[in-house]
Amino acid sequence: MTITDNNHRPLRSNGETRVFPIVGDPIAQVRSPAFLSDILAARGENALVVPALVAPADLDAFIAGHKGVGNSGGLVITVPHKAAALAHCDAPSERAAFAGSVNVIARMADGRWRGDNTDGLGCLNGVAAEGFDIAGKRALLVGVGGAGAAIAYEILARGAAHLAIHEIDTAKRDAMIARLDGLFPGRVSAGSADPTNHDFIMNATPVGMRPGDPLPVDAARLVPGQFVADAITKPAETPLIAAARALGCATMPGAGMFNAQAEILVDTLLSGATRD
Amino acid sequence: MTITDNNHRPLRSNGETRVFPIVGDPIAQVRSPAFLSDILAARGENALVVPALVAPADLDAFIAGHKGVGNSGGLVITVPHKAAALAHCDAPSERAAFAGSVNVIARMADGRWRGDNTDGLGCLNGVAAEGFDIAGKRALLVGVGGAGAAIAYEILARGAAHLAIHEIDTAKRDAMIARLDGLFPGRVSAGSADPTNHDFIMNATPVGMRPGDPLPVDAARLVPGQFVADAITKPAETPLIAAARALGCATMPGAGMFNAQAEILVDTLLSGATRD
Repeated sequence: MTITDNNHRPLRSNGETRVFPIVGDPIAQVRSPAFLSDILAARGENALVVPALVAPADLDAFIAGHKGVGNSGGLVITVPHKAAALAHCDAPSERAAFAGSVNVIARMADGRWRGDNTDGLGCLNGVAAEGFDIAGKRALLVGVGGAGAAIAYEILARGAAHLAIHEIDTAKRDAMIARLDGLFPGRVSAGSADPTNHDFIMNATPVGMRPGDPLPVDAARLVPGQFVADAITKPAETPLIAAARALGCATMPGAGMFNAQAEILVDTLLSGATRD
Repeated sequence: MTITDNNHRPLRSNGETRVFPIVGDPIAQVRSPAFLSDILAARGENALVVPALVAPADLDAFIAGHKGVGNSGGLVITVPHKAAALAHCDAPSERAAFAGSVNVIARMADGRWRGDNTDGLGCLNGVAAEGFDIAGKRALLVGVGGAGAAIAYEILARGAAHLAIHEIDTAKRDAMIARLDGLFPGRVSAGSADPTNHDFIMNATPVGMRPGDPLPVDAARLVPGQFVADAITKPAETPLIAAARALGCATMPGAGMFNAQAEILVDTLLSGATRD
């Protein structure tokens, strides 16, 4: 499965189609409706992911209304609604509660709605798909915004020996370290741009999206054997990933995280309870 | 355009797709999602009609939530919600207000929502497509339920000289005659099952759907030159239509009404205001 700009695939819409909106503002540029619908079609599901352009002021009413749709059972949430949507979950996962945001909600068999944040899952699944096992390793994470917080949680939840956090907003960094330390005591500390002595280096900042951006870590100090990952999907190969590859490091560019996350989102949507 | 059991056409869903739910309960058996989506695709529109299974208790919240969706602008309403949905229209058409029900609502440029009932429009457009002009003619309508009321209104609005109504519930019949007479004075009266001296005979009852049903009018008295129409789509040729054809009458079976109405629904949905 690759990222494609799909415009015309054999999807279907009939009375039995399950319909999962992805709610955001703006929404026109979002690739997930096509990408997730393609995965559903490839799995043989009569189901679609469709865009829903909803302003922040209208989000509560939209989600409340969608909860009554019997042939859905799930909803994908994107920018700027991920934090606000958490309040609509009766049963957020621990990682969603930690991140303070959800990007998918699904109806449970008992009628309650669970919410999840798949940024960390997608990232670490993508890394695992490249053959790297985070358990017991030393990790350096750059950036603890929305996605970064979820990735930090997942790195530790999967058994990394230690996590160092590099974040230019030091107050934000220290608050995140304190929160993580409450859940995973003694395994997290402040880091720097120097990747030396880390097995895994992850960029969760936007640095590298624009031409001329600096590198998020001191790439000259990377050595073969380190695994370097980036959350950025455009460009497909960031300067960090290019530098790491040139030095012989294994890598996962943003597409690996995006693709792994798409499969998790589809699994979660399809797990939602429906009625006839 | 014919009624097809479409399951797999080249529809698309991406971030720019306009999405129009059709809300009903049950919904799985409804042909409109596939049929209307096909019309949209055939017109080159990046737009889908998708099913929304919503119970009566959840309808108000669903419609309220959908009104905030910027990339839609319209909603198709089907059984059992047509009457309840009228309350969600700021600007119902006169024919919708008369019928007491809507089957489509669309956002106006000023943000208000108009509602329409297309049963009468679809029926008379379908009849016109068969070359019959109702203006100045004498009509016999059997049944004034939801669709029948809308068809009665449209027959008179398009200038029929006279409308006779045959309805076994005589109280319902007389109330309908009184209401129509207020809008179209002196042109409507009670009728019978005898089609004699009518140019146009329309069945708007379910009689003819099940094997062994009686005929809704005394078909033995039909004569060539009369036009006979039926709102029933299954079977495709009702006993009434079959009898009329055998006697040399021109006819419009339910598919003619369904197809004409589908085009009107698509026009109305596409007329809805969106935002970027």
